[in-house]
Amino acid sequence: SEEALMEREFATTNVPSWRNQITVRAIVASVVLSIVFNFIVCKLNLTTGIIPSLNVAAGLLGFAMLKSWTALLDKCGVLKQPFTRQENTVIQTCVVASSGIAFSMKSTKNGTATAYLINSFHTPKGAKLAKKQVSVLFKSFSFSFVWAFFQWFFAGGDDCGFASFPTFGLKAYAHKFYFDFSSTYVGVGMICPYMVNISLLVGAVMSWGIMWPIIQSKKGIWYAAHLSSGSLHGIQGYRVFLAVATMLGDGLFQVVYMAIVMAYSYILSKSKKKESSSNDENSSLSFDEQRRNEFFNKDQISNLTALGGYVVLMIISIIIVPLFIFPQLKWYHMLVAYLIAPVLAFCNAYGCGLTDWSLASNYGKLAILIFSSWAGLQHGGIIAGLAACGVMMNIVSTASDLMQDFKTGYLTLSSPRSMFLSQVLGTAMGCIMSPLVFWFFYRAYSVGDPNGSYPAPYGALYRGIALLGVEGFGSLPHNCLNLSIAFFIGAILINVVAMILKKYETKYRVYRFIPSPMCMAIPFYLGAYFAIDMCVGSLILYIWEKKNKKAAKELAPAVASGMICGDSLWGVPAAILAMAGVKAPICMKFVSAASLNR
Amino acid sequence: SEEALMEREFATTNVPSWRNQITVRAIVASVVLSIVFNFIVCKLNLTTGIIPSLNVAAGLLGFAMLKSWTALLDKCGVLKQPFTRQENTVIQTCVVASSGIAFSMKSTKNGTATAYLINSFHTPKGAKLAKKQVSVLFKSFSFSFVWAFFQWFFAGGDDCGFASFPTFGLKAYAHKFYFDFSSTYVGVGMICPYMVNISLLVGAVMSWGIMWPIIQSKKGIWYAAHLSSGSLHGIQGYRVFLAVATMLGDGLFQVVYMAIVMAYSYILSKSKKKESSSNDENSSLSFDEQRRNEFFNKDQISNLTALGGYVVLMIISIIIVPLFIFPQLKWYHMLVAYLIAPVLAFCNAYGCGLTDWSLASNYGKLAILIFSSWAGLQHGGIIAGLAACGVMMNIVSTASDLMQDFKTGYLTLSSPRSMFLSQVLGTAMGCIMSPLVFWFFYRAYSVGDPNGSYPAPYGALYRGIALLGVEGFGSLPHNCLNLSIAFFIGAILINVVAMILKKYETKYRVYRFIPSPMCMAIPFYLGAYFAIDMCVGSLILYIWEKKNKKAAKELAPAVASGMICGDSLWGVPAAILAMAGVKAPICMKFVSAASLNR
Repeated sequence: SEEALMEREFATTNVPSWRNQITVRAIVASVVLSIVFNFIVCKLNLTTGIIPSLNVAAGLLGFAMLKSWTALLDKCGVLKQPFTRQENTVIQTCVVASSGIAFSMKSTKNGTATAYLINSFHTPKGAKLAKKQVSVLFKSFSFSFVWAFFQWFFAGGDDCGFASFPTFGLKAYAHKFYFDFSSTYVGVGMICPYMVNISLLVGAVMSWGIMWPIIQSKKGIWYAAHLSSGSLHGIQGYRVFLAVATMLGDGLFQVVYMAIVMAYSYILSKSKKKESSSNDENSSLSFDEQRRNEFFNKDQISNLTALGGYVVLMIISIIIVPLFIFPQLKWYHMLVAYLIAPVLAFCNAYGCGLTDWSLASNYGKLAILIFSSWAGLQHGGIIAGLAACGVMMNIVSTASDLMQDFKTGYLTLSSPRSMFLSQVLGTAMGCIMSPLVFWFFYRAYSVGDPNGSYPAPYGALYRGIALLGVEGFGSLPHNCLNLSIAFFIGAILINVVAMILKKYETKYRVYRFIPSPMCMAIPFYLGAYFAIDMCVGSLILYIWEKKNKKAAKELAPAVASGMICGDSLWGVPAAILAMAGVKAPICMKFVSAASLNR
Repeated sequence: SEEALMEREFATTNVPSWRNQITVRAIVASVVLSIVFNFIVCKLNLTTGIIPSLNVAAGLLGFAMLKSWTALLDKCGVLKQPFTRQENTVIQTCVVASSGIAFSMKSTKNGTATAYLINSFHTPKGAKLAKKQVSVLFKSFSFSFVWAFFQWFFAGGDDCGFASFPTFGLKAYAHKFYFDFSSTYVGVGMICPYMVNISLLVGAVMSWGIMWPIIQSKKGIWYAAHLSSGSLHGIQGYRVFLAVATMLGDGLFQVVYMAIVMAYSYILSKSKKKESSSNDENSSLSFDEQRRNEFFNKDQISNLTALGGYVVLMIISIIIVPLFIFPQLKWYHMLVAYLIAPVLAFCNAYGCGLTDWSLASNYGKLAILIFSSWAGLQHGGIIAGLAACGVMMNIVSTASDLMQDFKTGYLTLSSPRSMFLSQVLGTAMGCIMSPLVFWFFYRAYSVGDPNGSYPAPYGALYRGIALLGVEGFGSLPHNCLNLSIAFFIGAILINVVAMILKKYETKYRVYRFIPSPMCMAIPFYLGAYFAIDMCVGSLILYIWEKKNKKAAKELAPAVASGMICGDSLWGVPAAILAMAGVKAPICMKFVSAASLNR
């Protein structure tokens, strides 16, 4: 295949030492892109929590920045060091680490894909395509930025503007079925697999189309009628806890399944090793593999450094977190978290390599349940659970991220040391940027309002899990426990059925059409609007693929990334305007025509 | 050239006798298409009066109807007579005659273009392209119909819906500057030449952007403040009479110019004839010309038939019109009209052949002035003038239409007799359909309301001309006469300058960038919104031509026709809904955000 001979194309290209891979220009580009992607990811997190794979965008933008800079220097005759793919990898790693782009729903071979992407940029043919992709990305970026800007003018008031457009009528709008003209989620839909978008839509129809109207008709019977719309003892409780139950069921299945796969592969590899130990392994290596192994093994990171670093971080965390940040989390909670985490991190990284799924968020959910019930309601169990989740998720996901980065590094002949350092640098930048960006949105908008533009759904759902941990099932409204159990089991069953079909029904591959319970649960809380946006994205991609498969494959991710970035970055001036108290001049309002005649 | 050898391709194709050119299926197709185009033209007339050249649409649809019908019969093995281009020409002629599509702003070589279009349909290569064009037409038809349908839902009330979208802000909207999302006029803009659209926009900026705001600031000084907004003694008077003055100036120039061109060409042809009379004319004829002459001369229409028909029609009109339709128009008015008309009709047909411009509407405007002042205010001069205009315009334009049809017939080997008969048939259908369609719109909407969806601008403007005829300049508001004279002279001057530049400045051909006064005058009354729609159409065409000139040239007229037809035909169900009292469920309203806080 084309990729198997990749290194031959680079045979004459010099590979810089690891210190020369982390150049000043690479750090500058990383900082700029980190700010951009922190804004984008924060916006996505606060609106739906669905983060698509943005590594194409990060790769393209990093490439475009350094390429134009080095081309400019070259023209002036002052270019000292040419732009290498190792620098490109450093930027990519740093940006991903700082903004948490890797926190996408399912990591789809990110490490390998990113490496192939970066390698391709630095071949003549790939550079030509990349140039086209960058131009397409900027075009769709400009379009979606201008479109978002245009939309802003009409949103001068509550329930005004395109985001309140009752595309399918006012009744459907009341049930959160509408197209909200957000190019962000159309773009996200173009990047996410078809089945994710369809799962979201199925979940939305099931919940907002069928279940919630039925449950709302029991108002006063199943739950008290006087409750505020945001109360978890009312309809909102059903939304949160059924989503939570589905997610926990799905998560439990995945953890168990992963454990089985890992055990199976461990047994298999042991028995294989016995057979193949007599053969000479090195002789079968291709040119590419030999070259990659050579560069990868040159710069090792000693076990002492790794272990020492972890212990130092553990000590700092155990002291700082309970004392200064979350007093609800005691030092022994932190100690236990730091002791369990490496085991889970190993399992996750290993499993991620086997199946391309990162289960970090599932471990995080389990951590909420465990730590919140351990701390207990009286001692701030909710905060303790959520904080412990943050600690656990970060450790577990950082480990698998680093594995992915090493893989990228291996395939681009980048040094493991430069990978590690750029990951550290990126994480450090993220520690500063992410809270600032969050604070920025938090100041400008009422983040967390379920009917606002920034409902932060995972905030509500994770808090729901913590509530289950501290209060048990007692606080659930009538019938909610039974329904939750049904959804919990249902989520597991759907996964089991899909897995069995995948294994035994290979003719039509029906399993491809089975929706994912995890995806179905997200609209339970939010409504159908973003699922409709995303299905529009799917539709656009589908038509494009029908018309011109090659162009769609090459350009669709760039177009989608441009749409996401443009619309999201309009959020920055919009937030500044909101903070400055500048309101849009026009309110585009949608009222029932019948009400006008009264 | 390709077209010069056209008849060689048809050398083996049989040409049916003139009776067999007017087949039953051709008449059925004509009736169906006539109904469709009557609706479209009526809608265009009542909204802006700008009728683009729709002969591509009529040709394509006629071809598609008969082609699919004959293909179906052929498949069943019962096709007796194949589909000929002569039948196609008969349909085209009939539809154009019935709906008055030919009443477009400037007939751009319609006869020849239509003939080439029809000829091309019946060659293998042309048929393939036609199939593609038909498919594109139906796609854009469906899109614009669905889009209009979607828009309808949001227009449940006054000033509601997309047609009231303040695209450039509320202040610009108040001055009639907005994009009204009408795919009709985007399509019209794609068909009309760039300069027409730019002229409209220039006129709109001049009037609604500069002049009207200045004149409105003189309210109470130049004109009484208590007048209703529709009164011709107020601001509306300036709008109407400045447009009328510009149109009359432009019209006068064109009539005079045409007279000069005709005289010049007459002198030239006389002196040429003397020189060339000795040569043998027939020897220089090409194969195409020989064949065309042969078929064209076979079926003559005798002068006696023509003259007798005119006299019979004159007698009928002189009796019927004053007695039963317009008592304000006396029998001697009719007689004079019928005596002058043939001279003007000859001039117009001759001039149209020379310059491709039909001046019928200019003769009509002059007729209004003459007959309304002749009848006088006390004796219903306004109605008399307008009715006389109708009579004159119809005679004059029918003559030049028939010349165009003969040209089409000549180039497609269709018999003059079948052309004449289909023109008669089409006119007869138009006599029945046009009033019915008008009545349909008139019942459903408040036609003529300057702020409604159907302002019927030419109604107001022609009435303005009649008012000038009966009342003279006395009724004009302050300074309106001076301004009108300035605009009258200005229109002539612009034309003179353009004509001089066209003749003497051949390097940059600057004359192409001089706007047409006639076009500039239309938005004086209506506002900028449709000019903006049309410029959007120009922009789309411009980008398309930049991207793919060939595709744009081949497909843009079909796309534009589809957009016009789809949006216009939605008008039919919309009107039925309006008559049945069904209101759209939602009102999309645009209010100032500042007013919400009060």
